Amino acid sequence: MDKIKIIDLKESILADNDRDADMLRETLREGGPFYLNIMSSPGAGKTTTIIKTVRSLRDRLRIGVMEADIDSAVDAETVQAEGIPVVQLHTGGMCHLDADMSRQGMRELGTDGLDLVILENVGNLVCPAEFDTGACLDAVILSVPEGDDKPLKYPLMFEKCSAVLINKIDAMPIFDFDMDTVRKYIAMRNPAAVVFPVSAETGEGIDAWADWLYDRIAEWRK
Amino acid sequence: MDKIKIIDLKESILADNDRDADMLRETLREGGPFYLNIMSSPGAGKTTTIIKTVRSLRDRLRIGVMEADIDSAVDAETVQAEGIPVVQLHTGGMCHLDADMSRQGMRELGTDGLDLVILENVGNLVCPAEFDTGACLDAVILSVPEGDDKPLKYPLMFEKCSAVLINKIDAMPIFDFDMDTVRKYIAMRNPAAVVFPVSAETGEGIDAWADWLYDRIAEWRK
Repeated sequence: MDKIKIIDLKESILADNDRDADMLRETLREGGPFYLNIMSSPGAGKTTTIIKTVRSLRDRLRIGVMEADIDSAVDAETVQAEGIPVVQLHTGGMCHLDADMSRQGMRELGTDGLDLVILENVGNLVCPAEFDTGACLDAVILSVPEGDDKPLKYPLMFEKCSAVLINKIDAMPIFDFDMDTVRKYIAMRNPAAVVFPVSAETGEGIDAWADWLYDRIAEWRK
Repeated sequence: MDKIKIIDLKESILADNDRDADMLRETLREGGPFYLNIMSSPGAGKTTTIIKTVRSLRDRLRIGVMEADIDSAVDAETVQAEGIPVVQLHTGGMCHLDADMSRQGMRELGTDGLDLVILENVGNLVCPAEFDTGACLDAVILSVPEGDDKPLKYPLMFEKCSAVLINKIDAMPIFDFDMDTVRKYIAMRNPAAVVFPVSAETGEGIDAWADWLYDRIAEWRK
C-alpha cells in the first residue's frame, strides 16, 4: 500500500472566510469537482459512510476523499484501501476546517479529472457548522446511539445541513431512539433538510442517499 | 416540577483563563465544593452517567449539577427529577466552558452546603479540552459505539483527563470495540489515566467509578 499523504494544514490568514468560501465555490463551478462536506460527532460513522457512498457511486463518478483529523492517519488508511485518491489533513489541534484549509487539501489531493471530492470534517457537532468550507453541499451524520434529541442541542449544525443521515439504524433495537421524534426535531431546525435512515455497516439505505447525491451533482453541473 | 433555571452565560472578558481557573480552584479549596468537569462527544451518555453517579453518592455527599448546552433544557429537566439542585447553562453558541463561565453557573446554582458540583460540559471532544474550567478533576466519557480509536484522533482530551469512563459496555456485542486496544491508546496519551468500563444504562461499573471519585474528593479535602 502506498504511504498515506499527510498534510499539516496552515491556519488561514484571510479575515473573511465566508467570502473565501464563495470564491472557492465559484472556482469549483468552472470545471472543478463537486465538493461534499460531511460532518458529525466523533464516532458517528463518517468514514464507513464515505466508503459505502464511494462504492455506490464509483461506476458513475471519479471520487477523491480528504480525511481531516487533529491527529492520526487511521481514516485515510481505511479509505485508501478502496483504491481512490485520498489525503489525510492534520488540523494541528483546530476543531474545524474552513475554505482556505479546503483549498490546501484539494491542492495536495489533486482534483484534475475528479467529479466529486468528499471531505470528512473533524468529528464535532459544534464548530464545523460555524465555518463555511466552500462545499457545494453540507451533510451531517447523526448516529442512533447518540440519541434523537441532538437537533435540539446543536441547532446550527442541523440548520446548515441540506442532508441528515441517521446512521447505525441496525442498532435501533437496543437504543432508545425514535425516528419520528428526530424527524420532527430536524424539521424544527431546517424544514428543507432531507433525512436518510442508513446503516453504513450493513449498507441499508446507502443507495437512496447516494442516488440523491448523484442527482444533486447532476443539477449542479447544469 | 419546579421551572428549570436557565442561565445565559456571558462570554468571559478575562485574557488569561488559565490563571482564572487556578483562582477558582483556590477559592473552592477554602470550603467550597469539589468541582468535577465531565466531557464527551454528543450522545456518549453524560447525563445518564451523572444521574447514576448522583444515586451512588447521594447518601454520602450533597451534590449539585450544572448542565451546559448551546440550546434546550432537556438534560437539566432529566436531572431535576432526581430532586437535587440543578441549573441549565446556555453557552450562546459557544463550544466550551471556561473558568469564568463556571463561576457564573455556580453563582446561580448556589454552592452553600454542597460537597460536589458536577458540570456536564458541551458535547464536544475537541474544544472543551482546551479551556480549563477550574475543575478539581476532569473526566471524559467515551462510548462504545464511537469506536476504540478515539484517543488517537482527539489527543488533548485524553491527555488532560484523569479518568476515562468507557460507557455503553452493554452494547459491546454489536460494535467492533476492543477494550484492550482502547486501554493501550489511552495509556499512550496519558499513562496515569484511570479507566472505568461502565454502562450508565444498566448501572454496571458505576459504583467502582463513584467510589474512586469519593476517595479523590476525600483526598482533596485533607
